[in-house]
Amino acid sequence: MSETNLTLHTDKYQINMMYAHWKRGTKNERAVFEAYFRKLPFGNGYAVFAGLERLVDYVRKLSFGEEEIHYLRTQEENYDEAFLEELRGFKFGGSIHAVPEGTPVFPNVPLVRVEARVFEAQLIETALLNFVNFQTLLATKASRVKQVAPDDLLLEFGTRRAQEADAAVWGARAAYIAGFHATSNMLAGMRFGIPTAGTHAHAWVQGHDSEEDAFRDYAEALPDHVTLLVDTYDTLKSGVPNAIRIARELQRRGKRLKGIRLDSGDLAYLSKRAREMLDEAGFADVKIVASNDLDENLIAELKAQGAKIDSWGVGTQLITAFDQPALGGVYKLVAREKAGGLEPVIKISGNPEKISNPGVKEAYRIVNADNGMAEADYVTLPGDGDIADGKPIRLFDPLHPHLFKRVDRYRAIPLLQPVFSEGQLVCRLPELDEIRREHARQLALFWPEHLRKLNPEPYRVNYSPAVLDLKAELIRKHLSE
Amino acid sequence: MSETNLTLHTDKYQINMMYAHWKRGTKNERAVFEAYFRKLPFGNGYAVFAGLERLVDYVRKLSFGEEEIHYLRTQEENYDEAFLEELRGFKFGGSIHAVPEGTPVFPNVPLVRVEARVFEAQLIETALLNFVNFQTLLATKASRVKQVAPDDLLLEFGTRRAQEADAAVWGARAAYIAGFHATSNMLAGMRFGIPTAGTHAHAWVQGHDSEEDAFRDYAEALPDHVTLLVDTYDTLKSGVPNAIRIARELQRRGKRLKGIRLDSGDLAYLSKRAREMLDEAGFADVKIVASNDLDENLIAELKAQGAKIDSWGVGTQLITAFDQPALGGVYKLVAREKAGGLEPVIKISGNPEKISNPGVKEAYRIVNADNGMAEADYVTLPGDGDIADGKPIRLFDPLHPHLFKRVDRYRAIPLLQPVFSEGQLVCRLPELDEIRREHARQLALFWPEHLRKLNPEPYRVNYSPAVLDLKAELIRKHLSE
Repeated sequence: MSETNLTLHTDKYQINMMYAHWKRGTKNERAVFEAYFRKLPFGNGYAVFAGLERLVDYVRKLSFGEEEIHYLRTQEENYDEAFLEELRGFKFGGSIHAVPEGTPVFPNVPLVRVEARVFEAQLIETALLNFVNFQTLLATKASRVKQVAPDDLLLEFGTRRAQEADAAVWGARAAYIAGFHATSNMLAGMRFGIPTAGTHAHAWVQGHDSEEDAFRDYAEALPDHVTLLVDTYDTLKSGVPNAIRIARELQRRGKRLKGIRLDSGDLAYLSKRAREMLDEAGFADVKIVASNDLDENLIAELKAQGAKIDSWGVGTQLITAFDQPALGGVYKLVAREKAGGLEPVIKISGNPEKISNPGVKEAYRIVNADNGMAEADYVTLPGDGDIADGKPIRLFDPLHPHLFKRVDRYRAIPLLQPVFSEGQLVCRLPELDEIRREHARQLALFWPEHLRKLNPEPYRVNYSPAVLDLKAELIRKHLSE
Repeated sequence: MSETNLTLHTDKYQINMMYAHWKRGTKNERAVFEAYFRKLPFGNGYAVFAGLERLVDYVRKLSFGEEEIHYLRTQEENYDEAFLEELRGFKFGGSIHAVPEGTPVFPNVPLVRVEARVFEAQLIETALLNFVNFQTLLATKASRVKQVAPDDLLLEFGTRRAQEADAAVWGARAAYIAGFHATSNMLAGMRFGIPTAGTHAHAWVQGHDSEEDAFRDYAEALPDHVTLLVDTYDTLKSGVPNAIRIARELQRRGKRLKGIRLDSGDLAYLSKRAREMLDEAGFADVKIVASNDLDENLIAELKAQGAKIDSWGVGTQLITAFDQPALGGVYKLVAREKAGGLEPVIKISGNPEKISNPGVKEAYRIVNADNGMAEADYVTLPGDGDIADGKPIRLFDPLHPHLFKRVDRYRAIPLLQPVFSEGQLVCRLPELDEIRREHARQLALFWPEHLRKLNPEPYRVNYSPAVLDLKAELIRKHLSE
């Protein structure tokens, strides 16, 4: 979205880390970081990975220009001029693996793996999390809406309540990946090729002497795209009857009214009455669009009440992920260069679930070859265990490890795909429509029990015995020290 | 933040409104819109207006370039080429009044008033709300934090959980206005001159063979700016003792350890023990910084428990306004050109509080001349009633209009200041530090009862009898039709 130089869109401590490594002479040491989240948002059964295209663009454009260098020179840390000179030539030269955008993803599975000089791996942490946390959160929220209205037209209408411009634009993109059909944001439409949608403003009606005149003038201006907002004065007494009048006039000209929009009041009652009125007038094909602080719960309730709504304009609740506006994705060091090799490292915490999982890891989606359904995600050390040989694996219940099931015949789909190799982009970035289709295709791998919005059945994420042994060994080592 | 052309950062319906006005030949009709919110966020007693500088920059740069025109040409609406030609020459030529940034503001008081050709007043609605809603929300959240820790150092640490880049950067600015002292976001620092702050990463410690070595190397690199993160392995058994060792080494070199940072665990207990350990070792001047999902409630609780924390790093909860991530600011048509004059207009709603307040309005802050305290905000039609003459006014309780108090001697400070006049910027935009100081000065006009974070005493917002009569008249007119 932004053409701004985002190189300093990072935390100060990253610059200080770079400086300390530079001073210490360790800036070129290799380090491996993995990004993942620990807990699914909204009580959902899955998240939808998004944000990679933004990350790729950011990484490719990383560069300290004169303005950035000058600013760093003014900092009270008084960075060495030779360090600033080093930054002047900075380019990202590391390797990144990531899950493809649109993939359903689960807690504690690495989503992005960065292997790079510690100097550069540090710099990108902040922006990487900023981009991936937000777009993944939004795509997940949008996917929840999609689950309750899979056959309806879904419109993203949140820009005026979004958390600034980038959130509106990238949020619209994330919603589209998860199955929304259009956005009201024209910049998102222009940037990403997302279809755009909109009706007219209350002010259009207020700006006329009568609602009927307002509708007529609008139909005059855009006769092939008329959706009328019927709630400026009184939906059933004024708005819908006036809309029907305009529908008749359009009909006489060989055109048709596309829809009416309800934006306030009791949407269940109003939509049923409006449907009846439209049908009685012979306009069964005119669609009803609803908006007004909708989210997946309200939409499900309205559907349960038999509301006659064909299309949903979802704003604030989606674009801010209102009920949980942050995804707690983290970026943890899992290995570092030592004596020429990569040594696994751990971060201990008083909080057991915050202890990091050491070692460079691979992640696989285990798809049962007998029924084609995803059984679990399986996280291994490279080449460890049975996955590499296609042997039967045991999937443990993480809370009750004595419970397990054995899968004999499966496909193990590697989740982490190469994106950058030594600074070079090595993947083709898919078109947005491809991502959206792939997302839908991948969701079909999951039993509906994992996808429902309330109390979904947890999908299994297993770590291989080799990872668990390594973790236990490093914990023992640190606790005994 | 963004240098992107934001002209299409608008809802499609605004473009369609512009088109319909263009087709109808009414594009040059004057219209007056007012932006305001109806409900304070977070149960707070006031909000802090912010976002104006961003809005001004946006308005000045509005222009449809080749990319925008080309994109509009591809839309299915099939806009007339002459309309696109009209857009090519578009400039904002209207007038804008707004409350100065940093001003405490209240529900239903106009914060921005736009008087312009309807063509241009429509276009800017979406971005205006997007900018003002977000920055006002964030400044308000930050002000709540400031209220519970008025004498402590407050650090904005939220970038990695912010809703994309703009939210991080503009959010940091909003927090600074409300009294935060620094941000971790370097881009915000560079753009706005906000002081930046940071410590070091857990990865720095994990990247060393021992925590002590890690601390020593960090102190070596930045000896004048050492704040050590002490929770990578065990805060009290390892982190704090190692920090004390480094403090001694720094002391021998004539330097000092600035602080330690606690980022997990029981912050009340850990800060008290760490304080004792530091004091016993002779380092009473070493500050304790805390972070880990803090908000105003947790900070107040920690203070009540006697936590020894000098500085608070506030992240996710602030930067996303976690407990209420959207401000419902709206932008309503209040008057339109008719017969050469401006005619007041209203929007009716089944929801009484959503009925708009008609007419071009002025807003005043009534400051009692006897004690210098703000008594109420008073919204009038231009020149109406007693305010203009400085006569005594009656302030009604909106819920119980038979209750009122009379104020005899007061200053009526106009809240809406000219910003643009016929497209020309007519105000000096204050420096960020001026806004921040002015905010603090203005907060001092309010009784503490209005400022407390829980169950604040509602501050009075009154509409003049002339506004209320006009509203009643327009409602009668619409209901009788």
